[in-house]
Amino acid sequence: MRILILGGDGYLGWPTAMNLTASGHQVAVADNYLRRNICREENSEALFNVSNLHDRVKIWEKISGHKIDVYIGDLCEWDFISTLFTQTKPEVVIHYAEQPSAPYSMLNRNAATLTIKNNISVTTNVIFAVKEYTPDAHIIKLGTMGEYGTPNIDIEEGWINIEHKGRKQKFLYPRQAGSLYHTTKVMDTDLLWFYVRMWDLKVTDLMQGPVYGLHTDENQGNEDLFPFFNYDELFGTVVNRFIVQAVAGYPLTVYGKGGQTRGYLDIRDTLQCVKLSMENPAQKGELKIFNQFVETFSVNQLADKVQKTGKIFNLDVQVKSLPNPRKEAEDHYYNPAHTGLLDLGLRPHYLTDDALAQMMETVLKYKNNIKKSSIFRGVKWQ
Amino acid sequence: MRILILGGDGYLGWPTAMNLTASGHQVAVADNYLRRNICREENSEALFNVSNLHDRVKIWEKISGHKIDVYIGDLCEWDFISTLFTQTKPEVVIHYAEQPSAPYSMLNRNAATLTIKNNISVTTNVIFAVKEYTPDAHIIKLGTMGEYGTPNIDIEEGWINIEHKGRKQKFLYPRQAGSLYHTTKVMDTDLLWFYVRMWDLKVTDLMQGPVYGLHTDENQGNEDLFPFFNYDELFGTVVNRFIVQAVAGYPLTVYGKGGQTRGYLDIRDTLQCVKLSMENPAQKGELKIFNQFVETFSVNQLADKVQKTGKIFNLDVQVKSLPNPRKEAEDHYYNPAHTGLLDLGLRPHYLTDDALAQMMETVLKYKNNIKKSSIFRGVKWQ
Repeated sequence: MRILILGGDGYLGWPTAMNLTASGHQVAVADNYLRRNICREENSEALFNVSNLHDRVKIWEKISGHKIDVYIGDLCEWDFISTLFTQTKPEVVIHYAEQPSAPYSMLNRNAATLTIKNNISVTTNVIFAVKEYTPDAHIIKLGTMGEYGTPNIDIEEGWINIEHKGRKQKFLYPRQAGSLYHTTKVMDTDLLWFYVRMWDLKVTDLMQGPVYGLHTDENQGNEDLFPFFNYDELFGTVVNRFIVQAVAGYPLTVYGKGGQTRGYLDIRDTLQCVKLSMENPAQKGELKIFNQFVETFSVNQLADKVQKTGKIFNLDVQVKSLPNPRKEAEDHYYNPAHTGLLDLGLRPHYLTDDALAQMMETVLKYKNNIKKSSIFRGVKWQ
Repeated sequence: MRILILGGDGYLGWPTAMNLTASGHQVAVADNYLRRNICREENSEALFNVSNLHDRVKIWEKISGHKIDVYIGDLCEWDFISTLFTQTKPEVVIHYAEQPSAPYSMLNRNAATLTIKNNISVTTNVIFAVKEYTPDAHIIKLGTMGEYGTPNIDIEEGWINIEHKGRKQKFLYPRQAGSLYHTTKVMDTDLLWFYVRMWDLKVTDLMQGPVYGLHTDENQGNEDLFPFFNYDELFGTVVNRFIVQAVAGYPLTVYGKGGQTRGYLDIRDTLQCVKLSMENPAQKGELKIFNQFVETFSVNQLADKVQKTGKIFNLDVQVKSLPNPRKEAEDHYYNPAHTGLLDLGLRPHYLTDDALAQMMETVLKYKNNIKKSSIFRGVKWQ
């Protein structure tokens, strides 16, 4: 299949590109290096240097024999996306091209505005480009479990049937996000759902939990093919960040009570989920929604696991509770459904001691790169 | 009170400005004439010429003795809104400053992009300006009943309590809008609700139905003080448009079965509702939502009413069903709650024969201005 990956330079975009070429698909990637630029501006550089897309594509081709076409440009610009769709004529569009950090989106007005403008404009342009150039293409959009927030009832998979005063209606499950970034994903959902109904688009929305890991079947631990690995407060997701903190001897930063519970997954499971979604596409006029994670942990549970794994490497991992800079429930009900992808054949990788140890071993090689000052800066939600 | 009206040049903005100065409030209006410019570009001019804000303010001052401060600029620009808030220090911000037309938002990619960018950017800037300059100000935001769509269960007033698998949660009532314009209002709601929770803003969201009418207590039928009156497919709301069609001898354009039912209100009731919301402000951290309409009609019922009123003026009003250019339910359940504003003291003006006759009499004076070619252009939703 002809696949276009938007945000192909990213933590998930690049591994997806390798994974899908390894499966024999024809892949093009597009990116404007927004994430790299923001990281540099905020002095939040990744744990190790990652080559640019052109260079990584050459390395991957040399190793695997698979080609990936690279398009560099801003998907907010119609000229760029129009050329991109005309040249690549995708059958599947995988849309990762968003400013992906919750703390960054809460940093200040400029960061908030960038997040809103980028995320909403790219999604709008994707919708219009598909309508105009490839109306039968399947859009796979990365949403987030964070769209749901932490309601006091079970979180269903995208939709909920409501019975009210003796009548029934199926609705999008009500969303109530905990950061501006997550709110832009809710707004994306609103837009996509509207145009699915109006224009019979085919859309799958993957409500993904926080992802961790570096190793995939394609990179085989080859660091030249690794994705970004951020460990700072802005761009490091919690599992990756805790492992770096453990290695750096920086106490694990638990916010408040540490009961914040989320659904997590290994980066290899993201690849599986995206591929399964591709192989089981939404029909015309269908918005398919999957909750994409494999197990839930509280922050305290994660801290315990990382602490335990640290012992294997003789690391004395401390845990420190900090006043919560975010405005969120620190102790809450959390029971989200996640059977859709399992039913399609997802075989989960769990966050075992071995998995944690493998990550920690990798991070230890880059111990000298860790800048402790990047780990915590206390971006306040309020 | 110091009141800032955003979108003060508009169909509702200008009457609100007069109304609130007449009540002794200190009012500033801001506008960039976006609506006028779009109308000109699309050859959708209003029924009669409306003076610019500076000129209308002078006329109003001469007649009433009340001053209104005028600020012309684009609220998407931070520089402008920042100066505006610094100079006016509003205690109440009434936010009408959106591209307000559903058909325009469905016209083409440029119109869609303008609608999204304008509406989301203005709302974002309003949120940040209030946070930065006037954190205690009460934001009164014009939403729309169209955010809810036409679900098969009763529409509650903004919120719904869901009982699910033995647990309970209060959510924003699920929204599912029927045009891009309405979808941007859903996205506004998402943004406002997020920042209400994070920053303890005070927000009232008025889910308004289609408004009709020209006469208010302030203009007393004086055409120099009338608001815009659009009758074209893009910017004319259905009651106003049907009256013009009746006067012009243009068969009333009923789309499909004509069972589309909505909640309507007289422009004087909009003024009452906004004032009541102002006098009963949301508290810090509260998003207050009212469904703002006074009675429901189907399009067929409206056509019948206009046809009947036409007889008073010896107009032979025809009704013509057209293939529906929109994608919408033409026959549906519709039972929205609307007690909140009544409980605060709203005294509704209903769409009586007299009310219709008064409007028709006014429109008859401008019969020669009507451009029949503007009435229907068949903007397709698909």
